[in-house]
Amino acid sequence: MNAIDELAESFSRLPGIGKKSAVRLVNYILKADRDWNRRFASQISGLQDKIRECSVCGSWTEKDPCPICSDMMRDRTTICVVEQPNDVAVIDSSGEYKGLFHVLGGVIAPLEGVGPDNLRISSLISRLRDGTVKEVIVATNPTVEGDTTALYIQRVVSAMGVSVTRLASGLPVGGNLEYVDRLTLARCFRGRTKI
Amino acid sequence: MNAIDELAESFSRLPGIGKKSAVRLVNYILKADRDWNRRFASQISGLQDKIRECSVCGSWTEKDPCPICSDMMRDRTTICVVEQPNDVAVIDSSGEYKGLFHVLGGVIAPLEGVGPDNLRISSLISRLRDGTVKEVIVATNPTVEGDTTALYIQRVVSAMGVSVTRLASGLPVGGNLEYVDRLTLARCFRGRTKI
Repeated sequence: MNAIDELAESFSRLPGIGKKSAVRLVNYILKADRDWNRRFASQISGLQDKIRECSVCGSWTEKDPCPICSDMMRDRTTICVVEQPNDVAVIDSSGEYKGLFHVLGGVIAPLEGVGPDNLRISSLISRLRDGTVKEVIVATNPTVEGDTTALYIQRVVSAMGVSVTRLASGLPVGGNLEYVDRLTLARCFRGRTKI
Repeated sequence: MNAIDELAESFSRLPGIGKKSAVRLVNYILKADRDWNRRFASQISGLQDKIRECSVCGSWTEKDPCPICSDMMRDRTTICVVEQPNDVAVIDSSGEYKGLFHVLGGVIAPLEGVGPDNLRISSLISRLRDGTVKEVIVATNPTVEGDTTALYIQRVVSAMGVSVTRLASGLPVGGNLEYVDRLTLARCFRGRTKI
């Protein structure tokens, strides 16, 4: 296998990149600025050395604890629980939420052998012990596993006297009724609000 | 900018990769095997050192001349002229063509300042001088520029007594009349064959 095919094969292992796109990417690299290619390559090989898990919330960070956990201006009475480190960036960039985060590292999925012990749930419980946190907002995805995980967290957290809420599920803004599936529609009705 | 954002920004510079896909790719790299990341990175940074232009046909190769130009089993009486190095691999993998190739490195596009002198046309002419080649098949894309380039090559090459042909243009196999544009349909009629 020559260098072109080798790189194409590597590119096609990345998610969402098929064989044809991989070849296009290799062509781009072949024509790109040599220094840019070097920088890009070192960003890839060095990423895991620079990024670690925040020992408090479990999200990805260069400094431990992460900028969010160590930001004293944030609301320390709320923790938003998410599945993946990337969800933190998604929610934080919306500007809607000013509290802290907690990354589970997945969802409860018995069929895949993932139980509560495989997730960062006990560290969530420890963070609630000193009584500062008043509300836990569960922002797992609106899937069967995400809902199961939310229910589990509700059970263990509310036993500690902390209120547990779940992100609203419904029509996406700008969406169209025609393209909404039946389950979402059912949730839209159940969660309807007075206008 | 932290290491995650830096890599996401680099990924999003690649063709066909938007901001959201770039973040997905960074997440993949974060979780991938450390050795795989190193290998992938070195494939990127090393590609341009390993790959050069074949001095005969202009396609990309690790050895000069390229495996196709130096393969004595191939039909040396035909040269297929293509726009880009990647077209060589596409045509060669079809198994339909057993002759040699010649890469122009683009097409005649006066508006972008690309004339015949900016393409590898004079080296094509030199390859025809010894009289071995009997046919030049022009496989530029069926676009205005591709057609213009094909006509230009037809003019200079047929003056040397070498026959010039053009790949058939028409309905793609498995295609549907409904989705074919008017220009293609016009070519389908002009190029109709007796059954």
